[in-house]
Amino acid sequence: MGTMTDHRPAEPMNWELYMPGISIDCVIFGYHNKELKILILEYKKSGIFALPGGFLRKDEELKDAAKRVLFERTGLRDIYLNQFHTFGSLKRGDIGPMHTVLRKNNMPFDNRHFLLQRFISVSYYALVDFKQVDPVADILSDSCQWYDSHHLPPLMLDHHEIFEKALEHLRNNIDRSVVGLNLLDDTFTMRELQNLYETILGEKLNRTGFHRKMMLSGQLKRLGKKKTGKAHRSPFVYKFTEEKK
Amino acid sequence: MGTMTDHRPAEPMNWELYMPGISIDCVIFGYHNKELKILILEYKKSGIFALPGGFLRKDEELKDAAKRVLFERTGLRDIYLNQFHTFGSLKRGDIGPMHTVLRKNNMPFDNRHFLLQRFISVSYYALVDFKQVDPVADILSDSCQWYDSHHLPPLMLDHHEIFEKALEHLRNNIDRSVVGLNLLDDTFTMRELQNLYETILGEKLNRTGFHRKMMLSGQLKRLGKKKTGKAHRSPFVYKFTEEKK
Repeated sequence: MGTMTDHRPAEPMNWELYMPGISIDCVIFGYHNKELKILILEYKKSGIFALPGGFLRKDEELKDAAKRVLFERTGLRDIYLNQFHTFGSLKRGDIGPMHTVLRKNNMPFDNRHFLLQRFISVSYYALVDFKQVDPVADILSDSCQWYDSHHLPPLMLDHHEIFEKALEHLRNNIDRSVVGLNLLDDTFTMRELQNLYETILGEKLNRTGFHRKMMLSGQLKRLGKKKTGKAHRSPFVYKFTEEKK
Repeated sequence: MGTMTDHRPAEPMNWELYMPGISIDCVIFGYHNKELKILILEYKKSGIFALPGGFLRKDEELKDAAKRVLFERTGLRDIYLNQFHTFGSLKRGDIGPMHTVLRKNNMPFDNRHFLLQRFISVSYYALVDFKQVDPVADILSDSCQWYDSHHLPPLMLDHHEIFEKALEHLRNNIDRSVVGLNLLDDTFTMRELQNLYETILGEKLNRTGFHRKMMLSGQLKRLGKKKTGKAHRSPFVYKFTEEKK
């Protein structure tokens, strides 16, 4: 157990403590090298990939459960977190994948095992600073890794649908400074901000139009020029007027 | 049972058929006489008021459950319905109100009764045509009535918070024609549309600015003049270019 970090639960789950039928799934977005990335778990020896998730304790607020799940996977607290949809399709009742996971982990179980029930999934998306995250697998998984959102492995159940809906919400909210505040460094050039927009929206934007729109939005403060050694060609550096919470 | 309509469940609930811990609550908006109204249930003899709600059958899609709840309360199918948030506060675990409801209804129960558990509530708002709705109480309730959203009775648990969040979503979506399409008659004057906006937003709008914005939006089609007998003073009549789904 030497590889465990201190934010990973040290003991096996006591399922009695959790609300039945309710799961929490998280689409955790990071941004790096012009790629929008999300964290994906791979269950041990099963080839089954899933969004990081968890369950709601009977003595816990729903939002606190989502924060806890994020903390357990990323080691980060005070992450920007947004509940965007609850998924309750009947196909979530397919116990096949969890059955495989339990079997591959050599865990004793019968068909009344907590994990082998229909769950509705209350889903959140999080915006995290890619560089600060040290992804942590859970007890059942052997990896928790960043994947480029354009090259995701096949995900279990409706998890790809959950990812797509999260991306839709992120796109709808792109003009709120919370997106750039959480995905970019504290200061950035206009080109870097435009790259972020283009990556999230999946389309090229007009440079002049983008610059104008952003300056009119009142969200940005222009600082000095970037130190590159060639002052006459250095771009300006910006930050958001709003503070990161 | 003579007063029951055919869309009301005729038999007492068989709780075995439902997912534990998951409820569905609906904020059903209607619009009439410049008032934004919502449907509120009053439980029998208890003075307890609540949003209309229900539960998720084990063999049912979440969205279908919400449609069913709406149908059971309003008799309408194909209502505009939008899932906006899932509420999971611990204070939802307060069994006091349901305890009272069961007692006042002389229903035999022990503390393991289905209704006496912590529920998380997947909440939807609906936009319905006020004139077409014949509100129906459920088995535990003696009324289901429209209330002006400015004069709601005190609601149980976090139901007032659910209402407020639904209103916030409605306000954020007011520029989508789905709002007017579902809350107004098929044709309307610009004044009537402005009244709807002002009622939902809770503020007066500038008449010229509103007119201009709506015409620029491309959502409206101008028809003839309203037939009032005084042609020179009759206002124009409009409809949405989009069709009601």
